[in-house]
Amino acid sequence: MKKTPRKPELAVSGFMFSGIAAGIKKSGDYDLALIVSDRPAITAGVFTKNSVKAAPVRLAMERISSGRGQAIVINSGNANACTGKQGMRDAAKVKEKAAKALGLSPEVVYVSSTGVIGKRLPAEKIVKALPELVMKLRPSGLSDASQAIMTTDRYLKTASRQIQIGSRTGTIAAMAKGAGMICPDMATMLCFIMTDISLTRAALNHALKEAVARSFNMISVDNDMSTNDTVMAMANSSLRNKPLTRNSPDYKKFKDTLFNISYELARMIVKDGEGATKCVEITVNGARTESDARLTARSVAGSLLVKTAMYGKDPNWGRIMAAIGYSGAALAEEDINIIINKVTVVRNGLGTGKEELLHKALSDDDIFITIDLGRGNKSAKALTCDLTEEYININAHYGT
Amino acid sequence: MKKTPRKPELAVSGFMFSGIAAGIKKSGDYDLALIVSDRPAITAGVFTKNSVKAAPVRLAMERISSGRGQAIVINSGNANACTGKQGMRDAAKVKEKAAKALGLSPEVVYVSSTGVIGKRLPAEKIVKALPELVMKLRPSGLSDASQAIMTTDRYLKTASRQIQIGSRTGTIAAMAKGAGMICPDMATMLCFIMTDISLTRAALNHALKEAVARSFNMISVDNDMSTNDTVMAMANSSLRNKPLTRNSPDYKKFKDTLFNISYELARMIVKDGEGATKCVEITVNGARTESDARLTARSVAGSLLVKTAMYGKDPNWGRIMAAIGYSGAALAEEDINIIINKVTVVRNGLGTGKEELLHKALSDDDIFITIDLGRGNKSAKALTCDLTEEYININAHYGT
Repeated sequence: MKKTPRKPELAVSGFMFSGIAAGIKKSGDYDLALIVSDRPAITAGVFTKNSVKAAPVRLAMERISSGRGQAIVINSGNANACTGKQGMRDAAKVKEKAAKALGLSPEVVYVSSTGVIGKRLPAEKIVKALPELVMKLRPSGLSDASQAIMTTDRYLKTASRQIQIGSRTGTIAAMAKGAGMICPDMATMLCFIMTDISLTRAALNHALKEAVARSFNMISVDNDMSTNDTVMAMANSSLRNKPLTRNSPDYKKFKDTLFNISYELARMIVKDGEGATKCVEITVNGARTESDARLTARSVAGSLLVKTAMYGKDPNWGRIMAAIGYSGAALAEEDINIIINKVTVVRNGLGTGKEELLHKALSDDDIFITIDLGRGNKSAKALTCDLTEEYININAHYGT
Repeated sequence: MKKTPRKPELAVSGFMFSGIAAGIKKSGDYDLALIVSDRPAITAGVFTKNSVKAAPVRLAMERISSGRGQAIVINSGNANACTGKQGMRDAAKVKEKAAKALGLSPEVVYVSSTGVIGKRLPAEKIVKALPELVMKLRPSGLSDASQAIMTTDRYLKTASRQIQIGSRTGTIAAMAKGAGMICPDMATMLCFIMTDISLTRAALNHALKEAVARSFNMISVDNDMSTNDTVMAMANSSLRNKPLTRNSPDYKKFKDTLFNISYELARMIVKDGEGATKCVEITVNGARTESDARLTARSVAGSLLVKTAMYGKDPNWGRIMAAIGYSGAALAEEDINIIINKVTVVRNGLGTGKEELLHKALSDDDIFITIDLGRGNKSAKALTCDLTEEYININAHYGT
């Protein structure tokens, strides 16, 4: 059993969590998690754009338009993807049995899965474990739950913040998993966000979509997009504030905090990139459009040659120039400036000859690449990690 | 000096080649090549789509619309990319001095470079070596020339064929380089194709574009697109056949042979992928449109998770399903069939349970993945290699 000591996250009024070992993972590690609200919550979700979608993702996408939810059952160790009709039946069974165990309508229960693709979900094991899972629910159970959604993750990924909503103190807490198969458009990553703050469905939807676009959709470990990616947010209104709309004075605060939590978790996922030794943040400034800024940042973040250069502390800025060049963004070579950990390595498209300084700067575990395209005032950020032999080692021998 | 014993390619009437060590590479390996025709040739070219283009690529793109050429000087060891105005002056200088040494107009001389980005081209060294380069020209010099355009290549890449054009026997011969930074849309790869067959400019252009689209543009080593990619073809009409047009009876034969040579060289590049141990050919059938077929084939070829699975002989077909799913092609999971080296691993979107058989089949060095989307009758092929620790090793420490 992995044990990761970590300060506990803030409890969110009205939510309980649990995590147990249901025997899905051969290792005996935690593999089944539950999130329950004591009342129906406004619920929003963002799901994988992969055309091949896991059964639980299909089920969730059917229900999410209701905007309501009260519980989420998550298993690791099996993705329940590429499992056909049997997979849909298995997902529906878990959902129904969990609803029954919780005394809820199946319509407010979601299921979510992560793990190996193409193997039948051991639904019986999950169903048999439900009583224990429900019994262990507690307000401070977030770290147990986050333990149970890990696959190749090396550590727990949770975050929480408090903000003032009028005279009340609201809380947002979240857990995520993901380490491999991560790419722009968020691949095998799961994230569940809970808050006691009251919001309208439209406001929660909007805040979540914006947060995901600028966090989980801007991270890249290996450019693969999974069949199971899911980010869900539940707002259960325990705080009893007047529901925030997109026009409420406190909405921006909520939205910014949701983004900050998402970015913090996205950064943890990148830091936990399979085999990674470095976290690389790419900031693109001076783009003509926001889309150009995003394209450029993602192109550099996705380049294997940039990622291997970061690993080898190789001051080969030409690879960054090449990745900028094939991004598809509007640019002129001679307008480009690149600064890496405070070293100006490219000025007006030309190398500054500071390779030795840059080589030293690349010893840091955190690399900040700032690119100015000199074409406008739009910006974007992307996160990536370096690419190492260990990534190959992990991925050449997973799942068999 | 690397020595690769290999059967000599066919000579092409009217063409001479040479390759020497000009001191650009510290190793003392061959690094300067020359191709010359004894008369002006119809010339066509396809160049990188990267917005950051090397100086020699810019020069070539300015001239290629003339449709004429007679000589190409190629150096390895330095890409002359991200070198600004100085780089343009250096490329122009090599071009002019080479023209002078050959007694030609600079307008029919092309230059081409490959190697490290962002370092000034040692134009003086090249100019100083021109007399020797010209002196060593000979009709059988193709292997010397191909030796001189290598960077991280482990072996020479040349190919040649003869075809009947009416009552005459025409020849096509080609050399290529490329092993890393290869991606759909051909990244740091160079290819030069010579023929004695007479064609109109339009016919040569058309045949070249079709061949490149189905060969060099369908290979993927690491998805990076370089600043220097170049494929050029010269037809010098030594055969004195009536110039082929797109309507000539023999044009299809020419076009097919040009494609076969291109595909053979593309396959060699993939086999020589940095650190590669396997060549993987992905065939997509049953696509609704040709674009869907290409998207799907390239998506699977580009997936790091598929490439690492091939390396580890991991029968994880779910990664192929995921890569098909995020390709953007029109598809339904339940229509998909996948056969790998004669083992049907997915039928109607579901695993067939043949993981053990597949694991054995993946021991072969040549892997053939056939995907049927069941949506139409369009097809496409892509080539890739596996991804290994050695790729990381090569790319983490190149160039410093």
